[in-house]
Amino acid sequence: MAKANEISHSMKFNLQSSLYYLINGPSTIFASLRCLENDYQTIADEKLTTDRQIEWEDLRYGLADNRFTRFSLETPGPLMIQYESVADIYPQLLNKSDVEDDGVRSIHSESMPYLFPSRYAPSDRLRAVAIDQFGGIKGKLNQALAVEQWIWERITYQHGSSDEKSSAIDTLENRKGVCRDFAHLGIAFCRALTIPARYVTVYSCLLDPQDFHAVFEVLVGGRWYLIDATRKAPLNGMVRIAMGRDASDAAVATLFGNIQGNGINVSTLISNEETTPFQPLYRQDLEENNQVISTI
Amino acid sequence: MAKANEISHSMKFNLQSSLYYLINGPSTIFASLRCLENDYQTIADEKLTTDRQIEWEDLRYGLADNRFTRFSLETPGPLMIQYESVADIYPQLLNKSDVEDDGVRSIHSESMPYLFPSRYAPSDRLRAVAIDQFGGIKGKLNQALAVEQWIWERITYQHGSSDEKSSAIDTLENRKGVCRDFAHLGIAFCRALTIPARYVTVYSCLLDPQDFHAVFEVLVGGRWYLIDATRKAPLNGMVRIAMGRDASDAAVATLFGNIQGNGINVSTLISNEETTPFQPLYRQDLEENNQVISTI
Amino acid sequence: MAKANEISHSMKFNLQSSLYYLINGPSTIFASLRCLENDYQTIADEKLTTDRQIEWEDLRYGLADNRFTRFSLETPGPLMIQYESVADIYPQLLNKSDVEDDGVRSIHSESMPYLFPSRYAPSDRLRAVAIDQFGGIKGKLNQALAVEQWIWERITYQHGSSDEKSSAIDTLENRKGVCRDFAHLGIAFCRALTIPARYVTVYSCLLDPQDFHAVFEVLVGGRWYLIDATRKAPLNGMVRIAMGRDASDAAVATLFGNIQGNGINVSTLISNEETTPFQPLYRQDLEENNQVISTI
Amino acid sequence: MAKANEISHSMKFNLQSSLYYLINGPSTIFASLRCLENDYQTIADEKLTTDRQIEWEDLRYGLADNRFTRFSLETPGPLMIQYESVADIYPQLLNKSDVEDDGVRSIHSESMPYLFPSRYAPSDRLRAVAIDQFGGIKGKLNQALAVEQWIWERITYQHGSSDEKSSAIDTLENRKGVCRDFAHLGIAFCRALTIPARYVTVYSCLLDPQDFHAVFEVLVGGRWYLIDATRKAPLNGMVRIAMGRDASDAAVATLFGNIQGNGINVSTLISNEETTPFQPLYRQDLEENNQVISTI
Repeated sequence: MAKANEISHSMKFNLQSSLYYLINGPSTIFASLRCLENDYQTIADEKLTTDRQIEWEDLRYGLADNRFTRFSLETPGPLMIQYESVADIYPQLLNKSDVEDDGVRSIHSESMPYLFPSRYAPSDRLRAVAIDQFGGIKGKLNQALAVEQWIWERITYQHGSSDEKSSAIDTLENRKGVCRDFAHLGIAFCRALTIPARYVTVYSCLLDPQDFHAVFEVLVGGRWYLIDATRKAPLNGMVRIAMGRDASDAAVATLFGNIQGNGINVSTLISNEETTPFQPLYRQDLEENNQVISTI
Repeated sequence: MAKANEISHSMKFNLQSSLYYLINGPSTIFASLRCLENDYQTIADEKLTTDRQIEWEDLRYGLADNRFTRFSLETPGPLMIQYESVADIYPQLLNKSDVEDDGVRSIHSESMPYLFPSRYAPSDRLRAVAIDQFGGIKGKLNQALAVEQWIWERITYQHGSSDEKSSAIDTLENRKGVCRDFAHLGIAFCRALTIPARYVTVYSCLLDPQDFHAVFEVLVGGRWYLIDATRKAPLNGMVRIAMGRDASDAAVATLFGNIQGNGINVSTLISNEETTPFQPLYRQDLEENNQVISTI
Repeated sequence: MAKANEISHSMKFNLQSSLYYLINGPSTIFASLRCLENDYQTIADEKLTTDRQIEWEDLRYGLADNRFTRFSLETPGPLMIQYESVADIYPQLLNKSDVEDDGVRSIHSESMPYLFPSRYAPSDRLRAVAIDQFGGIKGKLNQALAVEQWIWERITYQHGSSDEKSSAIDTLENRKGVCRDFAHLGIAFCRALTIPARYVTVYSCLLDPQDFHAVFEVLVGGRWYLIDATRKAPLNGMVRIAMGRDASDAAVATLFGNIQGNGINVSTLISNEETTPFQPLYRQDLEENNQVISTI
Repeated sequence: MAKANEISHSMKFNLQSSLYYLINGPSTIFASLRCLENDYQTIADEKLTTDRQIEWEDLRYGLADNRFTRFSLETPGPLMIQYESVADIYPQLLNKSDVEDDGVRSIHSESMPYLFPSRYAPSDRLRAVAIDQFGGIKGKLNQALAVEQWIWERITYQHGSSDEKSSAIDTLENRKGVCRDFAHLGIAFCRALTIPARYVTVYSCLLDPQDFHAVFEVLVGGRWYLIDATRKAPLNGMVRIAMGRDASDAAVATLFGNIQGNGINVSTLISNEETTPFQPLYRQDLEENNQVISTI
């Protein structure tokens, strides 16, 4: 496995998000607010609150062992769910030339599902296009970065240009989308090139306007590398909430029953306790130095 | 959880399958031949052989902890992979009236991923049709059985009418398919009705002609119920190989590199050691007695 | 050919429509404002005006010899195009039992193109569903009316639920649409049942709110029958603007170049000169008397 | 309108085609065997025969006034329909630099329908891709030729890789197809670039193996130019049978009722009476001399 650069360093963020709903009858929310806990990030001082007393249960499920909360609701009326925590992240900076590509033979078994097509990243349908477009590029990491650049150059970020049913096929056709669509197209292309790729929902520092964000990661030579084809936020300022094959695995909230969303509010700020000044690393910055960021 | 009927009983089967390939260059096969090991079935005397010496590795992965074997191939030429084992299965017979339906609030966290749309069972796109067609039926189990009957009545089983990219949407449009398509359509409809549903690849006794088979299971009230909308094989004669969200998770074989399939051979026979005569239970037989079969 | 009922009678309408645009650079509008002139309707006192001097040309084209106007625009700025006329229509009232169905052998050659699939009415993809749903109904007119009822019962009319790329396939999936989508789905089903069907853009009296409207017509036994599966307006109050295989042939306006739409205004009123009181005939009214309306 | 080159010359071909069917019950065939008669080609010595006595009617319909024959069949059993004729064609050779591009403002009204999306050439869905890929190229003819080259380089001609429901969207995704698919993709791209494009079914000399062939034509500066993105046959050896928006308008045969196809046989040969030796002009030959072929 490639060795991370010495200049990699941790960063501390204050996270806050509020979800607003209007409950009309018995309903259930699966919400993914609590952040993942792993080598890449540690989470402290978590606080989950609601503006009225409701029943909930913390769960973990899926390939990435995401932390979900299931809220069971009965009484009609508005509801606010609020989450707060402090996260330390440890992005690993690597030189592209140090990344080894050892192919499908050495993929760890737990990463294999990320090779297969999923609802919003139907990689089997993109194989011919992916091979035509990127097949000639040498090295899996270079292919993934070429995918990122292709998307960034050709897909227009436009609110309202897609909906929750949009897949990578639609994004490729319409050449428009939001972060979710940029990630799905990147994932689909990478899997079509036999690169395991997963969807990641994140709290994202310096994203303007502040919101949840969606990016993706590719597995090359035993490490996962973070990619954001929207280039709207620094890659070293993202705290991972949930991961999965695509948005169906890692949606911030899935609603069942008689309930509707009523807005969200998200804030991802550098902690006051942080002593190191934050030096945002966007794709362009990394490209200049032939670097990539690994989440381990 | 509903109590199984006293007449439930185990059955012993001899399983055998051979996969034939033509290797043209470096390639990898992920093969799912070894059966699942769980409360529903026990596997003995497993033997995996190849007709020439090759490198392989046994793995488990995915939501259902499927048992895959990764074959890494170099030398061109033909290859045969053969699997043999003896399986004991314990299908549980239940009265439909004993099945309780306790909704999305009590779904165990490990079953939640089976509620979400997947590549070949894009349930989000079938929601309007499913609710129109089945929304008025009371009870999740009754809805799932109505889905089964609808598919059986309206979809024609026809070899060659679909391909490996066909999804439930295509099957609904074309009204034709093979076992894989019948299962995907059933899964998509059920998830659209908020019933967790999973794809199951099986060795199937009395299937004519002998082949691997694909069916699905739905979760109601804490138990999984076996459904085969093709009605081509008895529900108490199926040994589960792999499970997942759809065929992308539970394909018998996934090929990478320079290799092509060259045929398969499958046999699922009642063991000579079995003393109880096999009484095949098809959907129609169960329906007459208001029964369903649970795999626990 | 079936004989029209004696109670058929003509009706006079005042039509007015205004189209508003913002021209940003050289551009072209194909506008279909002028009404069709044929046995069903006569048009008088036509006035086409613009709020500034621009170049235009009146054209006829397509299978139905639609009357289009091509506006060639250079100077940036807002533009209003206004149309006014007086139309007399002659809807023919027929008893369903008088309608003879003489099949594909006797379709006149000029109606044949309406049997074939088109962009938004891809009837070849709906054949299996149409035959399953309507194949058992006797008589082409009864099939077409069953299609109308099925759509009216199952598709929800909802502004913004579709866009200009939506086809009958999308409407069938989403179970939502606007008049254009209702017409396309009806056309696609009918063609799939070997009934020639065409798309008709109309000025529609009593439509609330006032707007252009889209309906369809089916050919049975040598006559075209008017169908509006939205049931939002009386079938004897429609003045035909353009006809074609689908909306691509009969759009009110098609824009090329650097221009954007900025609203429309439509009014379809019973003429002051009309002495007979208007007795609106909706599908339900006709159904009660086993009648249909033919446009000849 | 650009002036044709002096080296343009006529050529005489003997055409023959046989269609074989198995009639199982009452049925109807719309067959397009008789060639178009126009300035580009004259047809002589036409002979239409069947191997048993059946009823037929010659018709003309559609935008291009195609010559169809409607066969009405009753008695079950095999049927052969045979067509023979002698055709003289007058391909016009032009220098690319002589072709003027005068835009959407000067398109003749009868050519406008070829700007709009159709069933198999849904140009509205390809607009974003077409503009990204070809939008930067100057001149409509150059854009159309770039479309031809792109298709020829990236789409693989493969029998059985598509079916009668395949549209340009599918061909773009799968990167495979037959002549029909190559034509549909070309048409869709061109219309998306505001170039009128039509589908043409032809008898094609030197096509190996002999068969009907499908190509397309684009309208630039008042002339239609012939394009065959398969590059499988000389552009100066094609006799036009039928034209339309896509294959739904110009299929060789459309079947209704209880009947199935049973093979075809086609032959397009240089006439013995021809005194000039045939100098086949493929796209490559024309490209070398910066020429294109117009069908007027």
